[in-house]
Amino acid sequence: MDFFSDIPQVKYRYYNPKKMVLGKTMEEQLRIAVCFWHTFCWEGNDMFGLPAFQRPWLKSPQDKIKAGFEFLQKLGLKYFTFHDVDVAPAGVSLRKIAELIEKEMHRTKTELLWGTANLTGHPRYLAGASTNPDPEVFAMAVHQVKEAIDVTHQLKGHNYVLWGGREGYETILNTNIKQELDQYGRFLSMLVDYKHKIGFKGLLLIEPKPCEPMKHMYDFDCATAYAFLQKYGLEKEFKFNIETNHATLAGHTLSHEIAYSIANGVFGSIDANEGDLLLGWDTDQFPIDSAQYTHALYLILQNGGFTSGGLNLDAKVRRQSIDLQDLFSAHINGVDTLAKALIQAEELIKKNLLVSNLSSRYKGWSGKLGQKILKGEMSFETVAKYVETKGLDPEAKSGRQELLEGILHGLRD
Amino acid sequence: MDFFSDIPQVKYRYYNPKKMVLGKTMEEQLRIAVCFWHTFCWEGNDMFGLPAFQRPWLKSPQDKIKAGFEFLQKLGLKYFTFHDVDVAPAGVSLRKIAELIEKEMHRTKTELLWGTANLTGHPRYLAGASTNPDPEVFAMAVHQVKEAIDVTHQLKGHNYVLWGGREGYETILNTNIKQELDQYGRFLSMLVDYKHKIGFKGLLLIEPKPCEPMKHMYDFDCATAYAFLQKYGLEKEFKFNIETNHATLAGHTLSHEIAYSIANGVFGSIDANEGDLLLGWDTDQFPIDSAQYTHALYLILQNGGFTSGGLNLDAKVRRQSIDLQDLFSAHINGVDTLAKALIQAEELIKKNLLVSNLSSRYKGWSGKLGQKILKGEMSFETVAKYVETKGLDPEAKSGRQELLEGILHGLRD
Amino acid sequence: MDFFSDIPQVKYRYYNPKKMVLGKTMEEQLRIAVCFWHTFCWEGNDMFGLPAFQRPWLKSPQDKIKAGFEFLQKLGLKYFTFHDVDVAPAGVSLRKIAELIEKEMHRTKTELLWGTANLTGHPRYLAGASTNPDPEVFAMAVHQVKEAIDVTHQLKGHNYVLWGGREGYETILNTNIKQELDQYGRFLSMLVDYKHKIGFKGLLLIEPKPCEPMKHMYDFDCATAYAFLQKYGLEKEFKFNIETNHATLAGHTLSHEIAYSIANGVFGSIDANEGDLLLGWDTDQFPIDSAQYTHALYLILQNGGFTSGGLNLDAKVRRQSIDLQDLFSAHINGVDTLAKALIQAEELIKKNLLVSNLSSRYKGWSGKLGQKILKGEMSFETVAKYVETKGLDPEAKSGRQELLEGILHGLRD
Amino acid sequence: MDFFSDIPQVKYRYYNPKKMVLGKTMEEQLRIAVCFWHTFCWEGNDMFGLPAFQRPWLKSPQDKIKAGFEFLQKLGLKYFTFHDVDVAPAGVSLRKIAELIEKEMHRTKTELLWGTANLTGHPRYLAGASTNPDPEVFAMAVHQVKEAIDVTHQLKGHNYVLWGGREGYETILNTNIKQELDQYGRFLSMLVDYKHKIGFKGLLLIEPKPCEPMKHMYDFDCATAYAFLQKYGLEKEFKFNIETNHATLAGHTLSHEIAYSIANGVFGSIDANEGDLLLGWDTDQFPIDSAQYTHALYLILQNGGFTSGGLNLDAKVRRQSIDLQDLFSAHINGVDTLAKALIQAEELIKKNLLVSNLSSRYKGWSGKLGQKILKGEMSFETVAKYVETKGLDPEAKSGRQELLEGILHGLRD
Repeated sequence: MDFFSDIPQVKYRYYNPKKMVLGKTMEEQLRIAVCFWHTFCWEGNDMFGLPAFQRPWLKSPQDKIKAGFEFLQKLGLKYFTFHDVDVAPAGVSLRKIAELIEKEMHRTKTELLWGTANLTGHPRYLAGASTNPDPEVFAMAVHQVKEAIDVTHQLKGHNYVLWGGREGYETILNTNIKQELDQYGRFLSMLVDYKHKIGFKGLLLIEPKPCEPMKHMYDFDCATAYAFLQKYGLEKEFKFNIETNHATLAGHTLSHEIAYSIANGVFGSIDANEGDLLLGWDTDQFPIDSAQYTHALYLILQNGGFTSGGLNLDAKVRRQSIDLQDLFSAHINGVDTLAKALIQAEELIKKNLLVSNLSSRYKGWSGKLGQKILKGEMSFETVAKYVETKGLDPEAKSGRQELLEGILHGLRD
Repeated sequence: MDFFSDIPQVKYRYYNPKKMVLGKTMEEQLRIAVCFWHTFCWEGNDMFGLPAFQRPWLKSPQDKIKAGFEFLQKLGLKYFTFHDVDVAPAGVSLRKIAELIEKEMHRTKTELLWGTANLTGHPRYLAGASTNPDPEVFAMAVHQVKEAIDVTHQLKGHNYVLWGGREGYETILNTNIKQELDQYGRFLSMLVDYKHKIGFKGLLLIEPKPCEPMKHMYDFDCATAYAFLQKYGLEKEFKFNIETNHATLAGHTLSHEIAYSIANGVFGSIDANEGDLLLGWDTDQFPIDSAQYTHALYLILQNGGFTSGGLNLDAKVRRQSIDLQDLFSAHINGVDTLAKALIQAEELIKKNLLVSNLSSRYKGWSGKLGQKILKGEMSFETVAKYVETKGLDPEAKSGRQELLEGILHGLRD
Repeated sequence: MDFFSDIPQVKYRYYNPKKMVLGKTMEEQLRIAVCFWHTFCWEGNDMFGLPAFQRPWLKSPQDKIKAGFEFLQKLGLKYFTFHDVDVAPAGVSLRKIAELIEKEMHRTKTELLWGTANLTGHPRYLAGASTNPDPEVFAMAVHQVKEAIDVTHQLKGHNYVLWGGREGYETILNTNIKQELDQYGRFLSMLVDYKHKIGFKGLLLIEPKPCEPMKHMYDFDCATAYAFLQKYGLEKEFKFNIETNHATLAGHTLSHEIAYSIANGVFGSIDANEGDLLLGWDTDQFPIDSAQYTHALYLILQNGGFTSGGLNLDAKVRRQSIDLQDLFSAHINGVDTLAKALIQAEELIKKNLLVSNLSSRYKGWSGKLGQKILKGEMSFETVAKYVETKGLDPEAKSGRQELLEGILHGLRD
Repeated sequence: MDFFSDIPQVKYRYYNPKKMVLGKTMEEQLRIAVCFWHTFCWEGNDMFGLPAFQRPWLKSPQDKIKAGFEFLQKLGLKYFTFHDVDVAPAGVSLRKIAELIEKEMHRTKTELLWGTANLTGHPRYLAGASTNPDPEVFAMAVHQVKEAIDVTHQLKGHNYVLWGGREGYETILNTNIKQELDQYGRFLSMLVDYKHKIGFKGLLLIEPKPCEPMKHMYDFDCATAYAFLQKYGLEKEFKFNIETNHATLAGHTLSHEIAYSIANGVFGSIDANEGDLLLGWDTDQFPIDSAQYTHALYLILQNGGFTSGGLNLDAKVRRQSIDLQDLFSAHINGVDTLAKALIQAEELIKKNLLVSNLSSRYKGWSGKLGQKILKGEMSFETVAKYVETKGLDPEAKSGRQELLEGILHGLRD
């Protein structure tokens, strides 16, 4: 209990866990989690540079766990997330480590937002895990995921996440897409069966990403993954864990991915980070642009708020930020950006301007013509006849985009 | 019949319509079409510049049709494509013009690869056609598409294409995605009913594009459109018209979009052009890189070749290419690039190296373990047990990417 | 004087022209200009759509001028900018129109931030203006720019801008880069001579852009243009007009381009807009992200503030924003975003945290070793010897990026 | 002599070192080099995965050197390149290892195309080497580069390369660009002095890259580096080592960077690889697209061919290509792609079509008007007067882009 003894208890400018926002505490509206991999495991290496951090807790798996929970307490946060290999490196028993985690959770009154398994690091997964050309590798992945979901279940994890880090291809030239998708479908179906069998009540979440490290991944974005889920009859069993930086790498905004998922009933949780849109890889920076999270939270709250999901700070400090203090600065930015966004989202909801603009824009569809069309009471021919009979020539109407942007950014009412 | 009298009958280096390739003539394997919009309608304006071309046939709709068919003859090509507005500008009757087209088709023994309607140019479609917030605009779109498919049917078009040029949004702030997708679903369902009613036997094709002119389109790529089709129960009724430059704008290769569509049974046709991957808009250049079309055609031929689809040269000359001769140079490049690619694809198929590499790579899935997994005869638990009992530790195998690339590019056997 | 009679005088949330900020009025610190082209000339066409706006002032050049000045008054702004063709379309005398502009300027107490000539729209400039393969086109460009700078001078313009919209190439295959750069160098040298001859005291500004409509432009970014200026001995005669969206299309942030220009003594003015970083073309949206302008203004103010430059709102409403009210919403967003950014920049400067962090970070360079190196008093050999003698093994220090980002975004002190 | 004993001597489809091409052997026209870092040092790790290769020579530095020269012999190539740390890891004397290299060079009749120092991997260079805020780190960089150029000189290296891998910034917020550029200028000036002092006759080459691992680098592209060199009076002392994948990350084609460098007298050498333009990081793939190298070599040969530069295969196999055989497949692709490109470039030069098109396009500039302008004999006023007197209204001429593309791709004469 002394990795961060030099660092005072964190005070936030915007985040106040107990403050009520739209009927829940800020803590429960946001459900912010700290992740183990970036924050406690990464040593500051990049593709061109050696490890640059000196993390005192890396001497033993037990120290790492302790550092993690001490950090959560310093930040006053309630949730965390991890991969199997983050807490139990090769040769260490995950179940054994889980006992220590359980004790620490109890002591610190913290909860597991979600667990997951790392199916990307080990060389056996070079060509994918469940989508590997070798069924024995598929079997290894099953074995590993089974253990990870068992432990997640034991720790009362709110969700279990799958990131298909190498479920994709490096070149189509050696890839049978149909075969690999069938394998992936089978894998997920088996996982669903197992989840129900053990009585895990959390959500199963898929985390889309378009590429990196692979040239192209099967879970490119929410729409691609939703197409896949429907094809294999899994669309009721999975929801999405949307990562902001993955969304932007795929050419979408965070808002788009959330709105799309909500529209299709598959929204789950958020990996809250921020990409550098001028760079073409996953920079995983801490959230700092509150406007994009304002709109994200606005959409989520309009949809009833998070159920089992939350905002996981899947973000890392820059490689030059080698001090422990930097780890705190980064998390403070992240937490306060999300808290500020929540406050702004609350204001948007209270003012009701976006909603009322939306209903007036689409009001025609509640009218007679709109309803008859939507209910399937008109055919191509009857509609075409209607156009001619009425001599229709509807006028274009303004989309008022700039006014709405002014409202979102607090410049206009 | 004299727009191109100064220009001699085109001779190709690679294209020979009568040459047999894998059991069909080159003409029927490739089914190359010339499009009306870029080739006969575009006047050389761009967002920063005024029209720069002097097209003598733009004086009358009749001249434009005549120029089109004369051009096809000079090139020795059999197929063409058009939008309603390409041939019948505002105030001109499409049905009337269709009579002239029919006559010209008869005279020149040419065929309509597909027809379509332009739902993007008129200001009424500012905020989309079928996805417009105003049901009267939806009705106008129905009216227009009905006429376009009627004429396509009358001209024995092999397919009918829908490009959702403004079916998307400029800002999520004013957009109800769920509502708009429901409208779009309704529109397509009504079109399907109508198609069956009139007995149109061609395919209905959707052409994905991620953005431009809109910020974000609903048919972002094949996967997104496939997700949509499944949701609305339309996946048996539509296939895709894949445009190369749209694929790359969405972050995919042409091969990816084809392979994905084939894997999901929704491959239809190709808009054969080429984008500049260093530029972020749809440059619609003529195909010149034969390697990407070699692999594309390889995939299509392995899947049995085109049925009703083909290769539509949806491409335009650069704005500085103001001479009629440039129009020919561009089409010659396009046709010869596709022909060269076909010849190379034939060679790949004959050598059989890609296929045999693929089967040996996945052969484990034909074995006992692979088959039991795929057939659903093993659960997460039995697989995990199998791993432990057998002490599995499968070795990684090379993906041989460079060898395969050498084969594709004719550097290796 | 009645184009905007239905619209009340604009009130801002943040902008107050008379408020003092760091020793000057907000109006003089920001020097915000409205541009004629987007705001009064664009009719809402795009590459896929016809004009969608109904601008009542487009009936005559005189009406357009009147609308422009009425608009400025409604917004309470002091500066404007224009191209020759914005105010004097083909067939209308620019000098004649300039008289009307002068009268309006006098009446409304407004000033011309800068003038420019449009060398991109007319087909004669297809292959560039001064870089055209035809010297007669070069001559036409001289003729046109001479008139434009004459009029800018007559109207007491604060600067004259050159945007090399087609000074670049579509394909290297037909381009002699050396020849074209020599032409461009000659053109600018002749302009410099002329400027001095007529006694124009404003700055000559070059506006970099990497591409669009051309594949590649010679003024790709500030560094590229600076390389060119040095080569032709022009680096004292030109400064840069940096456009935010051009900067991001070139892979840079606005801050980067400003900091680079300041570091090299070539900073001039800003075209204040905002690009959509997920789209690959120049979207020219109104500024809405205050954080990027906060840092931009911070850098400019640290450098002494604008001299003759300013913030030109080179931005357009979205195509669906067809109402006059939208034109106001957009400009209000732009003005208030810049004003908010100025207030935040003032706060940053007063707190002094960024500056003090910077000086402490580089303090070693004021020390003995640093100074000897910088002054050229040490050679490779003496430095290498120093390393060995001292047994140097310097420790890495944190870059504190997250702390600084927190400060910039108002999350930390 | 036994790392590759199972692998037969390589035979190429296109490469024949002794074949004469335009007056030199293919070997001397291409000057192809193998690099040590990717080929002999990389172990197949990526940002998400552990090392996947089993390289038998990694047991000792001596084995690595031996493997390198054995590989060169198997490939029949004459040149190689290396970083200091590639051959002498921490704790091993570079000078000592250089003796072994020298012996191997002598034995195998191979030559060093260039040497370099790795200033990116060690944590001390976190914030840059010569641009580090700490002058002691600058000193360390001097020490390291001095040793690297000493060894390069001893081994008769044809060039010495500098890649500013971390000479840039992660955030402008903590960066004094002016200060860092001054440091960089000083560093390069000191290196120039040292080079002359020791009598190293090779070229000093700078290798531009826009970003990665840093957010933004000072040597973004050739133009940026050329601006810098001019500012510090170094433009006669350095030339560029252009890497294809770096060029495309910066938004340029390889041809552009070459043509730009030639136009400004700073072309040096090529790092021949290929990027995946749909991915946003440096994929460093082996050349496979011969068309881009055809044009590159065309430009270089038109300029007289390589002097001390060459084509360095700065490329790595994909991570799934774990076998030694893959290392050969990859290099064979690279070498044959370059050889094929050379043969095609020779054909282009012999046909002379591109050159003759170019001279006819610019012929106006050899005329009276063109010459008077270029020689500075006309002012803005005299040119403007000329336009009026002559009533100039020049006609646009076709750029013939498609014809030229057809010629480049062998589709047209």
